[in-house]
Parts: sequence; C-alpha cells; structure tokens
Amino acid sequence: MKIIKDVKFLIVGLGLIGGSYAEALTDLGYEVGAITRSQKSIDYAVEKGLISHGTTEVTPEYVSKFDVIVFALYPKVLTEWIEKYQGYIKDGAVLTDVTGVKSPVVYKIQEILRPEIEFIGAHPMAGKEVYGVENADKSIFRNANYIVTPTDKNTPEGIQCCRELGKILGFKTVSELSPEKHDEMIGFLSQLTHCIAVSLMTCKESENLVDYTGDSFRDLTRIAKINENMWTELFLLNKDELLSQMDLFVEKFKELRDSIENEDTEKMKEIMKLSTHRRAFFDKKQ
Amino acid sequence: MKIIKDVKFLIVGLGLIGGSYAEALTDLGYEVGAITRSQKSIDYAVEKGLISHGTTEVTPEYVSKFDVIVFALYPKVLTEWIEKYQGYIKDGAVLTDVTGVKSPVVYKIQEILRPEIEFIGAHPMAGKEVYGVENADKSIFRNANYIVTPTDKNTPEGIQCCRELGKILGFKTVSELSPEKHDEMIGFLSQLTHCIAVSLMTCKESENLVDYTGDSFRDLTRIAKINENMWTELFLLNKDELLSQMDLFVEKFKELRDSIENEDTEKMKEIMKLSTHRRAFFDKKQ
Repeated sequence: MKIIKDVKFLIVGLGLIGGSYAEALTDLGYEVGAITRSQKSIDYAVEKGLISHGTTEVTPEYVSKFDVIVFALYPKVLTEWIEKYQGYIKDGAVLTDVTGVKSPVVYKIQEILRPEIEFIGAHPMAGKEVYGVENADKSIFRNANYIVTPTDKNTPEGIQCCRELGKILGFKTVSELSPEKHDEMIGFLSQLTHCIAVSLMTCKESENLVDYTGDSFRDLTRIAKINENMWTELFLLNKDELLSQMDLFVEKFKELRDSIENEDTEKMKEIMKLSTHRRAFFDKKQ
Repeated sequence: MKIIKDVKFLIVGLGLIGGSYAEALTDLGYEVGAITRSQKSIDYAVEKGLISHGTTEVTPEYVSKFDVIVFALYPKVLTEWIEKYQGYIKDGAVLTDVTGVKSPVVYKIQEILRPEIEFIGAHPMAGKEVYGVENADKSIFRNANYIVTPTDKNTPEGIQCCRELGKILGFKTVSELSPEKHDEMIGFLSQLTHCIAVSLMTCKESENLVDYTGDSFRDLTRIAKINENMWTELFLLNKDELLSQMDLFVEKFKELRDSIENEDTEKMKEIMKLSTHRRAFFDKKQ
C-alpha cells in the first residue's frame, strides 16, 4: 500500500490524537472519515473541516470504503473492535494504531486478524494534558517521535506504508523497534515518569504550595494531570516491565539518599556529574 | 532603609543570579557595584552595562560605599565573607542573600553580625541551567517567586526593604516564611525534585534513548543538569529535612507500585485522580 492521493483514511476513535491525525491528513488533501462514539465529536470535526464525513455506527458499507484505518482507541476496546468488525474491512487494507503499549496489543491483533488485512503497530509519542477532538492539533507532531513496531507477520510494504504515514503526519523522526523493545523503553521513558510525577504530586496538599513553587516542581508534575482510565490500562498491560523500571529507579534514588545521609560528598558529586553528562545528550538533539 | 533613588547596591558574587540582580537594578537607574573573584566577570559586566564599577579586592574604601549588599555566594563562602569583612560595611546597611537554604545561613550570620548592620535572608526562586554573569538575564524573575525569611532579629524596616527589593527586581510574588518553614518547603519543592531528576537520569545510558523520548522524560530531567558543588552543599545544609522528604516520596511511590503489582485498579485510579486534582491548583496560577 503506497500512500498516494486517492488513499482513503478512516480514523476510529476521534479524540485528541485521532482528531490530530484527521486534521493533518485532511490538510494534506486526503479523504478522511471517522467512526466514534459521540455524534457531537463527528459534528465538531466535520464543521471544523477535520474530516470529510463520519458516523457513530459501524456498518460494512462505511468501513469497507477505506484503505488505511487508524485506531485511536484504548487497548482493550481496540482488540474488541477488531474481533467484532474485521469482516467489514476491505481486503488489502492496512491497519495501524496509536497505543502506548505494543506487545500485548500487536501480537493479539495479528493473531486474530484474517490474512487479507495487515495490522502494523505504531506509537506516535505526542500528546497534551487535554482531551477530546476539540483539542485536536496537528502541530503536536512537529517535534515528536513516531515509532513503528513491526513483527515477522508484517510485509515490507506494510512497514513502508506505516513509516510513510509517520512522515506525512509531520513527525520529527520515524524509527522502528520490536514491540518488546518498545515496551521496555516506554516503561522507562513514559510510564515510569508518569508514576514519578503522580507520586510526587500526591505527597502533600498543594493548594498553599503554589506561591513558593519554582519551575522544577511544575516541570516534574506537568504530567501528573493524568487520565486515570487510560493509564491504568496501559500500566497493567506493561506491568512486569514497568515494575522492573520502578524498582531500578528506587534503587538509584536510594543510592543518592544514602550518600546524602552518610554525607559522602564524593559519591554525591559523582552521581550528579553522571547526571549532567547524560542529560547533555538530550540538549544536543532538542 | 527605604530603597530611594540614591541607594547604592553592592553585589557580592557576580554569577548568573548576581548578574541578573545587577542588570535589573542598573536598568532601574541605581548605582550598582560588584565584588567577585574573576576580573573577567567584572570587565564583562561593566562593558555590558550591568554594573557601574567593580573589583576583585575586598577593601574598606569600596565596601563602605554601599547601602544595600546582596550576597550571591555559596552558603559557606557567604558566612566566611561576613566573618572576615563585616567591619568594612557601613553602619545602617542592609544585607541580604540569595541562598537556597535559609536556617543554617540566616541564624549563623545574624549571630555573628555586629548590631549596626541588619541581615535579612531572601530566596529568589529563579534560575537557569547555565552559569556565569555572561548568562545574566533579569527576565528570569518575571514569573518567579521571591521569599523573604525574617527572624525576630529583623526590624520592620529591614523586612520592608527586602520585600521592596523583590518587587523592584520584578518578581511575580513576594512572600514571607520563617527560615524553618522555607527549608521544609524547599526540601520538598526544589531539593527533592532535583534528587528525583538526577536519579532518573542516572538509571540508564541515555545516548540511544534520545530518539524515542517524548516530552515527559525531557521535562522530568531538565534539572538533572546540575551544579554538583552547589547542590552538594545545599543538600547537606538541609539534610534532615531533605531525607524526610525523600522518604515521604518513596513511601508514596511504593504505594503506587504495590497497587500496580496487585492490579488494584481502584487504588490506582484513586491515586491518579488525587494527582490530577492537586495539579489543578498549579494550572490556575500558572
């Protein structure tokens, strides 16, 4: 599947991410349709020109129109949708998703999917602390990374199609990882960081801390405003990996704590120097 | 001491913060002098118009010119300076500082200071991840908080002078806390956050993580680029408070960890809801 001009896109799940995909693709001149639960979201997206048309009903007539289907759903709802409606999808279509955990999603779907359709997982590492299609904004992709997670069930053409999608959406980098590597990495970079932010935010009453706060606390807790339903699902789908990343973090944290307790200034400085050195890699590419 | 137009300011320690104070005060039309270790910093600051004059030598003739002295030094160097040179300071002068830890600094200085001079602690909660007068920038005060930490040794006039200084420097809010309350608060909001950032940054090699990183990890590690000498000193000066804040954080982190391990979704969601609720106070005032 080459993404040529007459390819038709279907977005299933018109929230912040689905809406932002829709906006980017429509602006590029593609025909974009949507299926989502709320008619209000469809109406909004049509009115704002994010999609050409949309529906709250999943019908064979509508679903079979599309060449590329992007699922922007919670993981469990996603696999249920595929189980229930995959018969409606056109042969040769390419399916992809935006889910933050890959192994449990990708292998499950590839196992149940009929062979005439290809599913290739992807994770657009972009977001905002707001929800809903009303906040759709394709500019969130501009400085973000897009990760494709192929398995040996994928074809070179399917992988190419998914990579191309990341590129035309405007992501800064498009890269590939196995689903397992992705989940290890995301357990550390994204899930652990959300756990840290949430824990820090719940330590103390915050109402009267605001007047004394510098940027550090604000930065570390930006992501503490969190969608509890989505993240509970994501954390549990990646439970073993996340727990091992959390344990690694606590180990490092205790190392620093003990060096402070023992007034081991050499050790303290050594840890901080390593930290400064490692953070520098992020400055260069920022 | 009222901050009227002919008040002369001395900045001791011309780094990022000292230089930013100098810039703000000079731009307001005050005469600002500086004492610092490096002649290069003096030359730079004179050339850029941050100060009127400066010196690397601490002499009675120079020091006695000034009505308000701002110490932008590391805590230990600060108390040593006062011990050695307080005889040079003009009677009636007001002294203040910018140190990130207050109790050990403020009480020590007030104990050794001769009664003709007043020292009142302050903490400008502003900064950057770069150092030196070359990076001085008064705009860092604009959205920041300034905390005055008076004790019963301070006069209403001294407190007023220090509050006024925070205001004319351009801080968003000027507030007062006891040195003890300040250190408790800063142990949590600033020191704990730096410990978390450093620990997270030292967990793994970072060179090949960059391409997969979203904003969360970048946000949580911005302050992991850290001046190891200054922070080692600050951490140890506030050791007991910091350790207790670190322990509180680990306790909360483990609570979340255990709820994930036990797949206790109710508990997980409850923690995340509390987190979202508490973070909202920061949005409102941002």
